[in-house]
Amino acid sequence: MNKTTFYELLRERILILDGATGTQLQKKGMPQGVCPEKWILENPHAILEIQGSYKEAGSDIVYAPTFGANRWKLKTFGLEDQVREINMSLVQLSREAVGRDILVAGDLSPTGEFIKPFGERAFEEAVEVYKEQVEALLEGGVDLFVIETMIDIQEARAALLAVKETTDLPVMVSLTFGEDEKTLTGTDPITAAITLQSLGADVIGCNCSTGPKDMIHILKEMKGVATVPILVKPNAGLPVVKDGELFYDLGPEEFASFIDEFTNIGVNLIGGCCGTTPEYIRLIKERTESAVPKMWLKSKISALTSARKTVFMGENMPLVIVGERINPTGKKKLQQELLDGKLSEVRRLALEQQQKGASILDVNVGMPGIDEKKVMVNVVENLSTLSELPLCIDSSSPEVIEAALRIYPGRALLNSISGEEKKLEKLLPIAAKYGAMFIALPLDDQEIPATAEGRIKVLDRILEEAKKIGYGPQDMVVDGLVMTVSADQKASLTTLGVIEYATKHLKTSSIIGLSNISFGLPERKWLNSAFLMMAMAKGLNMAIANPSSENLMELKMAGDVLIGRDENSKNYIAYFGQSKTISKSIDEKPKEENTRTKI
Amino acid sequence: MNKTTFYELLRERILILDGATGTQLQKKGMPQGVCPEKWILENPHAILEIQGSYKEAGSDIVYAPTFGANRWKLKTFGLEDQVREINMSLVQLSREAVGRDILVAGDLSPTGEFIKPFGERAFEEAVEVYKEQVEALLEGGVDLFVIETMIDIQEARAALLAVKETTDLPVMVSLTFGEDEKTLTGTDPITAAITLQSLGADVIGCNCSTGPKDMIHILKEMKGVATVPILVKPNAGLPVVKDGELFYDLGPEEFASFIDEFTNIGVNLIGGCCGTTPEYIRLIKERTESAVPKMWLKSKISALTSARKTVFMGENMPLVIVGERINPTGKKKLQQELLDGKLSEVRRLALEQQQKGASILDVNVGMPGIDEKKVMVNVVENLSTLSELPLCIDSSSPEVIEAALRIYPGRALLNSISGEEKKLEKLLPIAAKYGAMFIALPLDDQEIPATAEGRIKVLDRILEEAKKIGYGPQDMVVDGLVMTVSADQKASLTTLGVIEYATKHLKTSSIIGLSNISFGLPERKWLNSAFLMMAMAKGLNMAIANPSSENLMELKMAGDVLIGRDENSKNYIAYFGQSKTISKSIDEKPKEENTRTKI
Ligand SMILES: [Zn+2]
Ligand SMILES: [Zn+2]
Ligand SMILES: [Zn+2]
Repeated sequence: MNKTTFYELLRERILILDGATGTQLQKKGMPQGVCPEKWILENPHAILEIQGSYKEAGSDIVYAPTFGANRWKLKTFGLEDQVREINMSLVQLSREAVGRDILVAGDLSPTGEFIKPFGERAFEEAVEVYKEQVEALLEGGVDLFVIETMIDIQEARAALLAVKETTDLPVMVSLTFGEDEKTLTGTDPITAAITLQSLGADVIGCNCSTGPKDMIHILKEMKGVATVPILVKPNAGLPVVKDGELFYDLGPEEFASFIDEFTNIGVNLIGGCCGTTPEYIRLIKERTESAVPKMWLKSKISALTSARKTVFMGENMPLVIVGERINPTGKKKLQQELLDGKLSEVRRLALEQQQKGASILDVNVGMPGIDEKKVMVNVVENLSTLSELPLCIDSSSPEVIEAALRIYPGRALLNSISGEEKKLEKLLPIAAKYGAMFIALPLDDQEIPATAEGRIKVLDRILEEAKKIGYGPQDMVVDGLVMTVSADQKASLTTLGVIEYATKHLKTSSIIGLSNISFGLPERKWLNSAFLMMAMAKGLNMAIANPSSENLMELKMAGDVLIGRDENSKNYIAYFGQSKTISKSIDEKPKEENTRTKI
Repeated sequence: MNKTTFYELLRERILILDGATGTQLQKKGMPQGVCPEKWILENPHAILEIQGSYKEAGSDIVYAPTFGANRWKLKTFGLEDQVREINMSLVQLSREAVGRDILVAGDLSPTGEFIKPFGERAFEEAVEVYKEQVEALLEGGVDLFVIETMIDIQEARAALLAVKETTDLPVMVSLTFGEDEKTLTGTDPITAAITLQSLGADVIGCNCSTGPKDMIHILKEMKGVATVPILVKPNAGLPVVKDGELFYDLGPEEFASFIDEFTNIGVNLIGGCCGTTPEYIRLIKERTESAVPKMWLKSKISALTSARKTVFMGENMPLVIVGERINPTGKKKLQQELLDGKLSEVRRLALEQQQKGASILDVNVGMPGIDEKKVMVNVVENLSTLSELPLCIDSSSPEVIEAALRIYPGRALLNSISGEEKKLEKLLPIAAKYGAMFIALPLDDQEIPATAEGRIKVLDRILEEAKKIGYGPQDMVVDGLVMTVSADQKASLTTLGVIEYATKHLKTSSIIGLSNISFGLPERKWLNSAFLMMAMAKGLNMAIANPSSENLMELKMAGDVLIGRDENSKNYIAYFGQSKTISKSIDEKPKEENTRTKI
């Protein structure tokens, strides 16, 4: 099944997934503690009956019972050498059960190990573990992939990359959220959705957990930002033990009473997880028969994520301050530490900038005598858990950028891609592969154009090229390319013109690095502050600056109020009325209504 | 001669004025100390011969010898009861001398008294003295008027109003500047030109003084801002006594060597003053025969004047701060003083605001229990000499406004004219009569429109009505009408939209009152400052504010640099590099090139 056909199907109707496999196998006699994959292969009738009855109940897709069939999981049963055989055989069983009328999804699930930055295992090891399974599932003949019950965004990313680097078949990613609406490693639904769809998930969603009711809000949040279809596969409520037997407390009818709400929210694929049976699936089928599927968003989302937070850009969103200080240029102490492989100064600068109100951290470790790639990866891994702020990966080396984007457990900002032929050719595909937003620098092989018109030409070109590989204007951030006003009297007007063009015509975000403007003049803070406000009036969305700069945050808070980016002056009052710690207030996610109208 | 015919003539060629009358009369035997007007009437052949030979030499216009024939001057010879007879007879003599082929101008000159605010005589008395002479000159049959050798802008205004309130004949106003390029009461050529052409002078220029050379720069300055033709009538150099006789040191040929430069500058009428003879006029005629007259500016000038200074508005001009503090609202001390007829607090506020960087002073004395008109006139007269800053006349009473504009010795800003039917009907003609710039308030009889679109409709209407009575967009200042953002979330965006429309479409100036925006929110200074910078980015030209407000002037100085209103950051560096006293630097007149390209 190719993606186009899959999406055509999803535009036509709501697709029905299968119900529980694990709990059904237990009913069929599978004992506790055995390796399920091995038991299935030894007792093929069980899975043939289960999946046959799901097909009969109306499932469009069954998940091959390969949930635990990755090398690390199988190793606990001493079966790590049989990854290929087990996966191939299990897929063939599923095919036998349902034939070619409905789809068989290769099922990838947690490895049971934690990978960096949340654990010790290397990211690349996990990718390899999943790749091995993906290749076997492909050999077995799956129609598509599902990565399900994921509790760590980084492991989900590893699995997703493993699929995407191996095949073009559709891939769905489904996470499990706790009662706090976060995954085990702390990712919320919006952040997960943006991170995974940016990285290339064709469907996103949630499964397992405590039942349909608690998923409603999660699905609403996901749908608000989803540029792909969404899926839900809840448990049949909570497990309860009755007369020594394990039950799930939500009966089929009760479970099915949530289906209308799911279709109203705009869920595109519905099935059941633990505790559900063919009866549940039959009712889902019944309830969705006449439902018209709701489409996913056509425009991309202007947002950056860390593993634990999303920062939105856009017309109604607060100005985003990108903390500029993690950069060794002119910082002797930081330079020495980076040379010595120490990170305490990086960590201090990160926390200080977050505390002062930065919403994004720029990370630049370029300096002589350093293995930039190694240091960059180390810093990014460290900051990914230390700070909640999304990162801006700032390097002139495409290799360093790719290494950082690959291991970063969120959607980063790439700083930057210019109109230089080689940069465009190399960096755009890298950015697109990892789904990063990127800063477009309006200069090309010939020059840094001195006029707004000249810069606009370069920007048009970059956006055109970006669109060819799937980007939208929402993914691009135009750099106003601030030059020094004391050297070129028109430098500020040129930049303001570029920002206005980005806002009104390109419909991209825009960014400026503040401090250049005032170079060589006295009392630079006034020029920097004034310029920031003027740029905001032209639609500026982001500024690379030192959030500790005098006046900067105060004026930013005021500026947000004045151009409709701070509803009811809530953030402003919070900032000035109580304390000056604003990390909470400024990057709150937008209300769902806002998110929708924005797009 | 009506104005249209007069201007047609001036478009065709350079007009030739006459030469000296006084020095020529002395050559014809007029003794020192006599009343020249009386001597002429007793010795008519002298003037018949002098003016006859000027006509023969090529003069297009001779000045009737009524220079001293106003009541106050004649009183020194006991002739104050013969104003009518003397003026009529002198005009008839000139007519006899030159016939109907060339023009006879009724000549009004200084009364010899000083009027308020520079002297003790009431302004209205001077107007009456000139009116009496104007009526007699009209009866005598003059073709046009010339107000010449004026050394006090306020007396020139009185004479000009006297002519304009009596007749529609063309009127030329010519001042005498000292070596410092100022009139005796301190008015520079640019300020004089703007003030007088705004008040309705049909020609402006300079005469007498030290000779043609020193007039070159004065004429260049006038031409840079002149929306009417300009005239020059220099002395034949400096007076020297040789062998007991009075000579002027510049011979005819030497004098004539300046004529090319005059026509290059764009002088439209040329003659000679003291010491010149028909030979000088013959040479002027010769040298201008083939010259093509340079036109005057088609667009109006966005500038306000006091008696001693001009403040320009416009795209390349620094933001103009209008000091808001002379307003009794909420100021107990000021209220009490105004009730008591004292002005020390007004004077203190004026000087303090000037020192802090205001370029204009708003004057509002409206409060219960006060004779607003009387107090306003008193305050305006006081401030006219105390401070160099132009005034903004701020009242809700058309009567008060008219009284203030009438006696104000400059070009004031009227605050304000709304779209309300009655306000438009009453105030626009008053503003136009006195040549004031005016603030247009975007509200009408129905409402204060909440949207930019609604306000734009009102502003379009006001400008349309203003154009009907001779105004251009350069004369109007759009009020952004700042409402409170804490009450209406969109208030700031609405105002920014109105400012942008004024800048881009109406091509008017714009102004905001800063402090409303932040009402009801904490730390208001940040909102005020941020809003000012945003408004500047949209093209704002003026702000009504307290120049002592924290951050305000610092950000204004920075803002001017950033949007091309402070060439080479000169003002910024002066402000921060040396002292914080900027009254000099911020309202420097623009370079001549700038003035021209702006128009
Ligand atoms: Zn489950
Ligand atoms: Zn919730
Ligand atoms: Zn003279």
